[in-house]
Amino acid sequence: MATLGDIGVSALINILSAFAFLLAFALLRIQPINDRIYFPKWYINGARSSPRRSRNFVGKFVNLEFKTYLTFLNWMPQALKMTESEIINHAGLDSAVFLRIYTLGLKIFVPMTIVALLVLIPVNVSSGTLFFLRKELVVSDIDKLSISNVRPKSIRFFVHIGLEYLFTIWICFMLYKEYDIVASMRLRFLASQARRAEQFTVVVRNVPHVSGQSLSETIDHFFQTNHPDHYLCHQAVYNANKFAKLVRKRERLRNWLDYNQLKFERHPEKKPTTKMGFLGLWGKKVDAIDYYKHQMKELERRMSVERQKILKDSKSILPVAFVSFKSRWGAAVCAQTQQCKNPTLWLTNWAPEPRDIYWRNLAIPFVSLTIRKFIISVSVFALVFFYMIPIAFVQSLANLEGLERVAPVLRPVIELKFIKSFLQGFVPGLALKIFLYILPTILMIMSKIEGHIALSNLERRTSAKYYYFMLVNVFLGSIATGTAFEQLDSFLHQSPTQIPRTIGVSIPMKATFFITYIMVDGWAGIASEILRLKPLVIFHLKNLFLVKTERDREKAMDPGSVDFPETIPSLQLYFLLGIVYAVITPILLPFMLVFFGLAYLVYRHQIINVYNQQYESAGAFWPHVHSRIIASLLLSQLLLLGLLSTKEAANSTPFLVVLPILTLAFHKYCKSRFEPAFRKYPIEVSSML
Amino acid sequence: MATLGDIGVSALINILSAFAFLLAFALLRIQPINDRIYFPKWYINGARSSPRRSRNFVGKFVNLEFKTYLTFLNWMPQALKMTESEIINHAGLDSAVFLRIYTLGLKIFVPMTIVALLVLIPVNVSSGTLFFLRKELVVSDIDKLSISNVRPKSIRFFVHIGLEYLFTIWICFMLYKEYDIVASMRLRFLASQARRAEQFTVVVRNVPHVSGQSLSETIDHFFQTNHPDHYLCHQAVYNANKFAKLVRKRERLRNWLDYNQLKFERHPEKKPTTKMGFLGLWGKKVDAIDYYKHQMKELERRMSVERQKILKDSKSILPVAFVSFKSRWGAAVCAQTQQCKNPTLWLTNWAPEPRDIYWRNLAIPFVSLTIRKFIISVSVFALVFFYMIPIAFVQSLANLEGLERVAPVLRPVIELKFIKSFLQGFVPGLALKIFLYILPTILMIMSKIEGHIALSNLERRTSAKYYYFMLVNVFLGSIATGTAFEQLDSFLHQSPTQIPRTIGVSIPMKATFFITYIMVDGWAGIASEILRLKPLVIFHLKNLFLVKTERDREKAMDPGSVDFPETIPSLQLYFLLGIVYAVITPILLPFMLVFFGLAYLVYRHQIINVYNQQYESAGAFWPHVHSRIIASLLLSQLLLLGLLSTKEAANSTPFLVVLPILTLAFHKYCKSRFEPAFRKYPIEVSSML
Repeated sequence: MATLGDIGVSALINILSAFAFLLAFALLRIQPINDRIYFPKWYINGARSSPRRSRNFVGKFVNLEFKTYLTFLNWMPQALKMTESEIINHAGLDSAVFLRIYTLGLKIFVPMTIVALLVLIPVNVSSGTLFFLRKELVVSDIDKLSISNVRPKSIRFFVHIGLEYLFTIWICFMLYKEYDIVASMRLRFLASQARRAEQFTVVVRNVPHVSGQSLSETIDHFFQTNHPDHYLCHQAVYNANKFAKLVRKRERLRNWLDYNQLKFERHPEKKPTTKMGFLGLWGKKVDAIDYYKHQMKELERRMSVERQKILKDSKSILPVAFVSFKSRWGAAVCAQTQQCKNPTLWLTNWAPEPRDIYWRNLAIPFVSLTIRKFIISVSVFALVFFYMIPIAFVQSLANLEGLERVAPVLRPVIELKFIKSFLQGFVPGLALKIFLYILPTILMIMSKIEGHIALSNLERRTSAKYYYFMLVNVFLGSIATGTAFEQLDSFLHQSPTQIPRTIGVSIPMKATFFITYIMVDGWAGIASEILRLKPLVIFHLKNLFLVKTERDREKAMDPGSVDFPETIPSLQLYFLLGIVYAVITPILLPFMLVFFGLAYLVYRHQIINVYNQQYESAGAFWPHVHSRIIASLLLSQLLLLGLLSTKEAANSTPFLVVLPILTLAFHKYCKSRFEPAFRKYPIEVSSML
Repeated sequence: MATLGDIGVSALINILSAFAFLLAFALLRIQPINDRIYFPKWYINGARSSPRRSRNFVGKFVNLEFKTYLTFLNWMPQALKMTESEIINHAGLDSAVFLRIYTLGLKIFVPMTIVALLVLIPVNVSSGTLFFLRKELVVSDIDKLSISNVRPKSIRFFVHIGLEYLFTIWICFMLYKEYDIVASMRLRFLASQARRAEQFTVVVRNVPHVSGQSLSETIDHFFQTNHPDHYLCHQAVYNANKFAKLVRKRERLRNWLDYNQLKFERHPEKKPTTKMGFLGLWGKKVDAIDYYKHQMKELERRMSVERQKILKDSKSILPVAFVSFKSRWGAAVCAQTQQCKNPTLWLTNWAPEPRDIYWRNLAIPFVSLTIRKFIISVSVFALVFFYMIPIAFVQSLANLEGLERVAPVLRPVIELKFIKSFLQGFVPGLALKIFLYILPTILMIMSKIEGHIALSNLERRTSAKYYYFMLVNVFLGSIATGTAFEQLDSFLHQSPTQIPRTIGVSIPMKATFFITYIMVDGWAGIASEILRLKPLVIFHLKNLFLVKTERDREKAMDPGSVDFPETIPSLQLYFLLGIVYAVITPILLPFMLVFFGLAYLVYRHQIINVYNQQYESAGAFWPHVHSRIIASLLLSQLLLLGLLSTKEAANSTPFLVVLPILTLAFHKYCKSRFEPAFRKYPIEVSSML
């Protein structure tokens, strides 16, 4: 059990490493050579085309103005300068709404921290049950500040219950306000956009095949019959994988051509040449510019042949179309209504943004979708509860002896005592670490198999799966003992009223673990996010070896975007921790606040200067954020109930039973009040234009 | 434990009483005096205006043709004569779809019965475990035919599991086919109806109050803006309770006027007179016809004043309107789309039929609806699990001593030994019997409080509540011991895997009870339904004392309608029994078949000749029927799983775990495939006209 001193040491280490990251960032970002890493958004926006300071040769790479080194933390106020509406214009609504999750966290937890610390710490400390126990037993200093310190059957539990009520009301109030704001932001954003094509367009899936008619005729006929006044035209979707391959090839050739032309411009005395064979490594030497120009022409001829082939071949038309209407009204109506008697045909939805569409999933038939969803939900369940089984198997294979057998050359190195002990600590966990690293990718592949047609939707589904994984394996897994599978088994054999007790009783004991978790994953993790170490290294490597033209340099920038599938679930885990521990071990809350504040600053900076969102879903993820905070609230109430029932506080627990029911009712109300704004498009808004 | 002989005796009694009812019906229905009880539908249709045979005075009341007495069972073939499409024209789609539930039952259970009896009875009997046990123990003859007779760990359980698979597939197949047929029947019915007003009409609720505008102006403005091409007009809804009272009074006066005029026509020599005082019992004698004519005139003047008052007073306009469109297309679009940014305002739905509307609930605001639903779901839960508490309290008060104290006059009668023992068996159960009698009414009131606006919806909700009650208190209550509340308590303290075992193990033992239940409630109950004893008595009483004019006689007929809230849940209970016992005690199935066959005949006769449906919902209850049969299937699988696990058939049970998952997947598919046909109105159908 960790004492307050241990926590202090851990805090110091994490604060130091966080500061190291921030310092490194502050120094690296003012070097012109790194400008494209730390300010790519401005390059993409067109506001910047080359690093700002570039007087002499050295100054191109290293910042020589020493004044700027003194103000190295000034990115923080800079990040706060932009207003929310500027952020929406600059980076889109998704980013602005994403930042609101952090401000929501601060708004919820700042008053809660103050109240909890002022009220609960005195109540808990003065109870002093644990002082009577032997010190070397299970007691840590943190526990003396927690609910564990209160005597069983004490009347003081009413304070905890009262605060749970107060916090629930406060959180619900803040959630309601926030949902309201986000919903109206979304509607305003959708209405204010320029008259863009997708607002007049509906994607139609599962178009049936009518014999004797081409797909295009079927679609025209159907919509001319059923939406005669509003139908404008439609755009069929072709299976053009081969054509896309040719397009990529042309890109590559054009790049080589540019490179050679540039070379020729710089040294007009020397005509660039290339070899005709494989990768230009052997074969006849020819004039490079002529060669690539000729290649390009040949390729364009092949592309036009391919295009003709696709347009003629009826098999390459997918049973999907983008149908455009004369008015937003017509599109809103078509997207929201059922078209066909058979509800599995002619499925209409709002067309996602062109960059948001995941093309491969457009043509999945309805029956297949049902089966896919079913299989994936079974697999996610298996993954969440049984992922340890294959990993343990791999671990049993991959140990030091195995390594020595495979690579006997390494034996002398491995047998060194220092390296051996390092490897022994590292190799067995390797499989697990690799698994956790590729987990988001696995979950994303699963979501893709499920058949969603928009990237934004794919990311939301991935995020949900990741949350279940974290909830079971990080939160419950840390509290209960054994693997998730063992827990599942024991829960199945326990009575339903026993489960919250089993978990509830060990919650206060794990407070120190979660405080450390917040510092490692939250503080240091977020500080490392701003440093962008991986893109930094990759950019400089690419710059050294691969970049030939300006276009290549643009590509090498890789600004990335907010990683919704990973950040949102971990954020929700923090909400869960904060809400659960608020009345149990309130000393955890200040650590939370530091995380929320720091992460808000970091992500605000990154959104303004770095990330370039791949798509815009207009904050479509908010209902998930909302409902998962509600779920955290419910979980915290159940766990407190379980904890109190082990404290024999039988006369106070009945007051808690009402709370989950009220919370659920609040959730239902919010769902019907706000969720339609995220799923449907009100006629009122569509007819404003 | 009942032996086969006991069952035989019980069967004999119930068959005899069923025959007695049928015989009484056959004799009573051919008496002209009862013609209006047994054929009211034809009077309402206008196909009949007076009993068929009426030559002499006696012949008016009693059937004197003895030939007709010999063919007294010919109502059965007559009931089968009408085709389904004739029934739809004659009695509406609801009735036709209701009959399909019975044919579905026959289609499902006839093959199942044959297979189960041929396969399982030999397997169970030849196992012969129970023959070794002492006969006087818990064993009945029925048990020897059931799964109880199979030795633990026997390989024979694979036969039961195989049949469970087979039956599940068969039931799902039949359900799918039936859902498909009913859905297309519904769409065809909706499309084929004459161009009736409600197909062009949408009911709009929660119209917001805009200051400075009348409600009517607000509605006009909103729809002219948002549905400019399709909006036709709207009809506001007024709070006209006072006016309705005056209308009822006018009806009464007109009836008296008719009566007096008829009297005058028959005896022109004597002018009818009446007294002006209370109920015509005292006061000045006046000419009756003049008096009532004058009263009518006075009343009509007051009605027109009241009408003006309502139209002028803005407070009497409710925030609800019926909005009519120029085309079905416009109405279909408006009903299916969200109108306003705030999804709790301007709620649009298909307008129910005028006779289907429950007017009182039209003006409930959205927040109130959420709260009402929440309160009612809590109350239903309490009613289902704790209804025994108040009844036990009343029972403890209402006993024989209490009765004697209240009415000492009765003491000598009560003290008679025969009567005392009868009363002692009767009085304590009285509260329970009264409760069960008024239960549907209580549930209907609850549904009304929930705030549904259509009678059909109210009946469906009542039916759902009644089903939960029956499931917990009849099915589970008969299997497990103790009250529902005690079961709930014990289930909360058991592990979730233990519950199906506890219930599963006692299922075979209760087979004889449920066989008796089917005979009493199913056979004799259905036979008594066709006799219509209550309406028969009431009609003749009214005819003797109250009927003055032909209009009164029309009213006294009371054809009633199919009692959906009571019949559908009990039907679903029969499905549950059949599915659960199919592999456990297959001997129960033939009793089921008799019920389904008899009930089908009886209801077909009643629908053709008696019932007059109050509204037409176009089979909107089918999704409930479907999903509750699926729920029965799931329950049967879980219970079989529990039963087998107590039989130590550990090597065979894993095969059963997959089945509920597959069943659920099937249900999900059906839901998305067919349910929209019952909730939405496809654009394709609306634009056909």
